[in-house]
Amino acid sequence: MTSEFDVIRQYFQRAAKDIPLAVGDDAALLDIAPDHQLVTSADLLLQDRHFLSDTPPDTLGHKALAVNLSDLAAMGARPLACLLSLGLPSIDHGWLQQFAHGFHTLAKAAACPLVGGDTTRSPQGLVVGVTVMGTVPRGAALRRDAAKADDDLWLTGYLGAAYVGLHVLWGKQTVEAAHHASLIEQLQSPQPPYIFAPHLRAVAHAAIDISDGLMQDLGHLLEASNKGAELDYQALPSHPAIQHLDGKQLAEAVLTGGDVYQLCFTAPREHRQTILQLAKQHQVRVSCIGRVTEQKGIAIKHLPHPDWMPSHLGFDHFLD
Amino acid sequence: MTSEFDVIRQYFQRAAKDIPLAVGDDAALLDIAPDHQLVTSADLLLQDRHFLSDTPPDTLGHKALAVNLSDLAAMGARPLACLLSLGLPSIDHGWLQQFAHGFHTLAKAAACPLVGGDTTRSPQGLVVGVTVMGTVPRGAALRRDAAKADDDLWLTGYLGAAYVGLHVLWGKQTVEAAHHASLIEQLQSPQPPYIFAPHLRAVAHAAIDISDGLMQDLGHLLEASNKGAELDYQALPSHPAIQHLDGKQLAEAVLTGGDVYQLCFTAPREHRQTILQLAKQHQVRVSCIGRVTEQKGIAIKHLPHPDWMPSHLGFDHFLD
Repeated sequence: MTSEFDVIRQYFQRAAKDIPLAVGDDAALLDIAPDHQLVTSADLLLQDRHFLSDTPPDTLGHKALAVNLSDLAAMGARPLACLLSLGLPSIDHGWLQQFAHGFHTLAKAAACPLVGGDTTRSPQGLVVGVTVMGTVPRGAALRRDAAKADDDLWLTGYLGAAYVGLHVLWGKQTVEAAHHASLIEQLQSPQPPYIFAPHLRAVAHAAIDISDGLMQDLGHLLEASNKGAELDYQALPSHPAIQHLDGKQLAEAVLTGGDVYQLCFTAPREHRQTILQLAKQHQVRVSCIGRVTEQKGIAIKHLPHPDWMPSHLGFDHFLD
Repeated sequence: MTSEFDVIRQYFQRAAKDIPLAVGDDAALLDIAPDHQLVTSADLLLQDRHFLSDTPPDTLGHKALAVNLSDLAAMGARPLACLLSLGLPSIDHGWLQQFAHGFHTLAKAAACPLVGGDTTRSPQGLVVGVTVMGTVPRGAALRRDAAKADDDLWLTGYLGAAYVGLHVLWGKQTVEAAHHASLIEQLQSPQPPYIFAPHLRAVAHAAIDISDGLMQDLGHLLEASNKGAELDYQALPSHPAIQHLDGKQLAEAVLTGGDVYQLCFTAPREHRQTILQLAKQHQVRVSCIGRVTEQKGIAIKHLPHPDWMPSHLGFDHFLD
């Protein structure tokens, strides 16, 4: 019979070079570079709440880490290591192998080795908890409370695809077959800009990840910074696979759709060219979507019809 | 209606002095003292698996952090900060207030402020995930792989009470009324030696926490150190509230009972007096229970009857 220790050894214990002590003691031991600060965040993913029970295990392993890497990216931090807590309904070796593959593949790409965690039986359903740790030079973290009036407002990646993808999986939305795979991939395999983000420290004032939707998370950034913003609706990067939606549906997906593990950041106008060059160099799509204002609230320019303004502005884990 | 952000603000956002940035951004930001290493560990507690649904919320808040502080103690680390991920079946303000009180009271006592985490709805039952971070001077962590032959083998605290307490709660064991409260307290409110443990770095070779039971966790320490041990059964500190059990039951509780958030550590004989003095100074009970041997395996001296040797040697999260 498989024990907890076998599960850990078999699927999650990898030699992590440069880590003084990883999986296998009471705790992991990590070095922090001199004059750097530790950045840390945790996310909990629950079956039927954050993912459907038939989610492919490799994409779930990827996503569990990706949503956490997105939080590090939002601070401009470089990944250091992660911990994984798994509550498993049963020991399914095929499932574990694929989950571990998805997790480790992203961990390797992001230089964020798995150094510890916990494994237990969870009869009520799968529980996936990830904690990430990263580092930033002292005082250099990108915070959400540092936006300045007249900063450009930027976004990485595209908007709305994960939201539409989820509605497709729920059977509430149909899309052309040509777009189906792309939408599901955006939902299940988010690619936060974890390599690009640390470069933003040199040019950006404030940043936040927009995992709860653009309007809600931009709202948090502006509230923390005591500012407002003017958005140009026409500049919002709606994902190519959702551009066939009718206007009101599209506006809802783009403005409120969550599960977007991308960044919204603010930067002074003089850095516009540098940001475009950095984005090109790191193959990250960036869009300048408006500007920060002293005037509070979010004004949306060029929205084709006032009725397109969604009444509900983002995802909340208790309201939804 | 209460949103995720209200839950975080209302119950978990405390001003943490000396923390550059805590609850309220994408991630927390922490300073690590120069020439120190980061020590980190995570534990996942699930309803009906690790605690009963009627566990008093303040003791659950306490225990969720305590089991993690025990891992830091086992490394000789000083607590730095913690993260809390909560999956809640519903928003029960009375419950949250008491849970937060239990959690924060221990966090304050241990100087381990809550700096972040996640809150989400969990229809299937309560999920409590905690990650702790601590620090040790570079190279000074107490590991499980450093026991030396002829080291004394030490234990902090008492054995067996949490195990018997759990059987009492399950209705599988009855005890005198005089012992009832004490056993439940040992189960629900463990007190790991988080202040004493960093002092052990100066005198101990190896350490482990015995949360899965003495025989199993001592086995892990010996295996990692490539050593064996000779235990003196008469020296094992069985809890006063279980001493009325019959011999075989007592031996099982003491040797295999889990949920003991105390340390087993090894130290050279010349430090015996220093360890006793340190323990007295920090009001921690310590017992010298045997010695480390080159000969592999665990030999138990002075076991009154060979039949008292338990066949099953500890708790495993998948086997039980």
